Amino acid sequence: MTMTAPYDILITGATLLTMEASQPFISVGGIAIKDGLIADVGPAEKFTPRQARITIEANNQIVMPGLVNAHTHAAMTLFRGFTDDIPLEPWLNKVWQLEMRFATPENVRKGSRLAFIEMIRAGVTTAADMYWHAEATTQAALEVGLRLVNGVGIIDTVGNEGRQNKEEPTRRFIETYLNHPTVHPCVQVHSTYTVTTDSLRLADRLAQEYHLPLITHASETRTEVQTLLNRTGKTPIGYLDALGMLHPGTVLVHCVHLQEGEVELLARKGVAVIHCPESNLKLGSGIAPVPALLKNGVVLGLGTDGAASNNDLDLWGEMRTAALLHKGVTEDPTALTALEALHMATLGGAKALGLDTLIGSLEVGKRADVITISLDSIHLTPRYDIASLLVYAAKGGDVRNVIIDGKLVLHEGKLLTVDEEQAKEEVRQIAVEIAAFSPDDTTRFI
Amino acid sequence: MTMTAPYDILITGATLLTMEASQPFISVGGIAIKDGLIADVGPAEKFTPRQARITIEANNQIVMPGLVNAHTHAAMTLFRGFTDDIPLEPWLNKVWQLEMRFATPENVRKGSRLAFIEMIRAGVTTAADMYWHAEATTQAALEVGLRLVNGVGIIDTVGNEGRQNKEEPTRRFIETYLNHPTVHPCVQVHSTYTVTTDSLRLADRLAQEYHLPLITHASETRTEVQTLLNRTGKTPIGYLDALGMLHPGTVLVHCVHLQEGEVELLARKGVAVIHCPESNLKLGSGIAPVPALLKNGVVLGLGTDGAASNNDLDLWGEMRTAALLHKGVTEDPTALTALEALHMATLGGAKALGLDTLIGSLEVGKRADVITISLDSIHLTPRYDIASLLVYAAKGGDVRNVIIDGKLVLHEGKLLTVDEEQAKEEVRQIAVEIAAFSPDDTTRFI
Ligand SMILES: [Zn+2]
Ligand SMILES: [Zn+2]
Repeated sequence: MTMTAPYDILITGATLLTMEASQPFISVGGIAIKDGLIADVGPAEKFTPRQARITIEANNQIVMPGLVNAHTHAAMTLFRGFTDDIPLEPWLNKVWQLEMRFATPENVRKGSRLAFIEMIRAGVTTAADMYWHAEATTQAALEVGLRLVNGVGIIDTVGNEGRQNKEEPTRRFIETYLNHPTVHPCVQVHSTYTVTTDSLRLADRLAQEYHLPLITHASETRTEVQTLLNRTGKTPIGYLDALGMLHPGTVLVHCVHLQEGEVELLARKGVAVIHCPESNLKLGSGIAPVPALLKNGVVLGLGTDGAASNNDLDLWGEMRTAALLHKGVTEDPTALTALEALHMATLGGAKALGLDTLIGSLEVGKRADVITISLDSIHLTPRYDIASLLVYAAKGGDVRNVIIDGKLVLHEGKLLTVDEEQAKEEVRQIAVEIAAFSPDDTTRFI
Repeated sequence: MTMTAPYDILITGATLLTMEASQPFISVGGIAIKDGLIADVGPAEKFTPRQARITIEANNQIVMPGLVNAHTHAAMTLFRGFTDDIPLEPWLNKVWQLEMRFATPENVRKGSRLAFIEMIRAGVTTAADMYWHAEATTQAALEVGLRLVNGVGIIDTVGNEGRQNKEEPTRRFIETYLNHPTVHPCVQVHSTYTVTTDSLRLADRLAQEYHLPLITHASETRTEVQTLLNRTGKTPIGYLDALGMLHPGTVLVHCVHLQEGEVELLARKGVAVIHCPESNLKLGSGIAPVPALLKNGVVLGLGTDGAASNNDLDLWGEMRTAALLHKGVTEDPTALTALEALHMATLGGAKALGLDTLIGSLEVGKRADVITISLDSIHLTPRYDIASLLVYAAKGGDVRNVIIDGKLVLHEGKLLTVDEEQAKEEVRQIAVEIAAFSPDDTTRFI
């Protein structure tokens, strides 16, 4: 009698952290994957005999949904550590000059590929990117095997793409990927201070027309808020509200400097917020009122932002920073729990990006974006509370296996999709040119 | 003609970060070690032919002084993640009950051994520990090969050692290790709120008599400051000052809640401060005024505190948190630079603990506490500024080699001193008992 192999991949023997409300933990469990989907989840006994093409024995490992990096500019790995520890104005000025010169489609593809490898190695299965040359970033994600939320970035300052009408490229990108299994189009507009009111309206119209998320930076810095107040008499949030752009599907990145009543406004309007704590700290922007957003029921995702302001793309660090920071600032050790940080980095991010029916938890029928984390490391010994262990002690390097859309991408620490050494070497070569470039301190772009 | 091997260990081909003011960086350098000392440092050419018993080729690696974890309670790895995300009062209450029951000399040795392995794996070469059963912790450090600053913890609450006179054990510990190459005795007293004035005076007298550092927790929480104000009319800092205990050699851990004028007072008195940012955040204690301490010239070290309040013992994370946090809080991206964070974690900590003539920088004649960090990881690609790369992107897992007092302890990622699997297994066994223990919510210890 021949054995059939009904599953493509079976992971068994692990502790499951499902992020699913009815059964968040399964202490010795298994998960079966077939045709890109989660086919079954449950206690380990359920999966004997082990009928799968690939079986991963994951004793002393955690299995959980892949992490969602809900805001990044992946290609900025090219500039990681090029200019740090200086005030925001000259920093922005340097970064914009670097981008003008080096953010070509080919370099964006290579920088993004490096970023996506780094993310996968640290358990990220979905990234929401915003950058020049969206198609180049998308190609990198397809090569590496990462799930990507992306769109053409609408911005009215001069950049590497030059000044141009963005409606046509935005529509083209959306229509190309509208039914793609791992590339999820969105509409994105840089911010209220870098685009015209017409561009904001255009973005919102396109988002409504295609029923897609509308992503924008908002209220990241005091200067930005003051700029908008001077220009329009309203804060960025107030201005978006006046344009009717605060509604379900709107995703605001940062929200550091919210004014009186704006937390409640965002909650009431069903807007999602992406928190990027390390970038906000490193640039000296400030600290977003996350416990208040949480208390008011705002959907929250977590993002690394780009590697020029972080400088890594490690969502474990971001979870940890979020959970620690808000406890310290509020002087309340219950302000943001480990489980809440895990939620932001998985189902919360998925919800914010409109993908929670597809990903974000281990549930039968969802796309199989699944990771395993080894608890064998000395820093993960001993083991009591799993959420605590993951958020306060685990590192990206503890991730052992990554499955995205049912495909094994990282297997026992080995990347299966692209040549990692080549990816590093290609970025090192670009970096030689970048290192030789001296940004001009007097040029101003915004 | 026979070749002599004048050096014990030679590391060559690396970028050196010396932390020494006259020549902080050597772009392609070498370091030679003999008889426990740094015998030579300089450009790589200087070291051909390569006359050493052990040669480490460290191309694409950084060589730097080992990190100084200037405050920890190592054995608390036993309780890592046992109780998190609850208010400080019940947290302390649970931890004290765990310690009463489980912090026996044998368990302290095993928990500390695990902690010291974790530290070495992440590049720590010196730890300053404070815990019950100082001798057990010291034995663990000797086994694992870590440099240790330690002393009998003077405390007047009931603990695992029972109420007892601490003068005799303190003297015995000091005299046992006074001239030890890797165990450096100190005097330590838990805090102004947990000991009597007599105990504080005793500690200071012993520190003066033996010319040793006097280490104590101070102004960690608002409650502590209020307790002292109620009891003595003075803050912890004010009370120590009134007792004449603020002077060079005094080391205050935390200093989160400093009052008007206290930063300047600490600077004027030559007191050192140990900053434990992650522990202060996680327990909701608050955020120490580190940029002000720095500006006033206070000597600053960096500590992880114990694994029950962190929950790892990773000084890379601590550097990163320190550098990011103070930028965010002050909204000034220059508030604490990467190089300042590295200084706190090396020479600053060494100075605070009175060990800067021995360790903390790569200088000829100092004891050879040296680490190498591989830049091969994807998250460390590409490479521009070394300090930025180390603080904002490097992880403990990037540490490749660790030399302590001239002895190779971690070699190409392999620990040479103790059986790591056994160390983990022994702690896992203790953890089974701990997991079965329910702390009593009504018992109060302080
Ligand atoms: Zn951004
Ligand atoms: Zn402590």
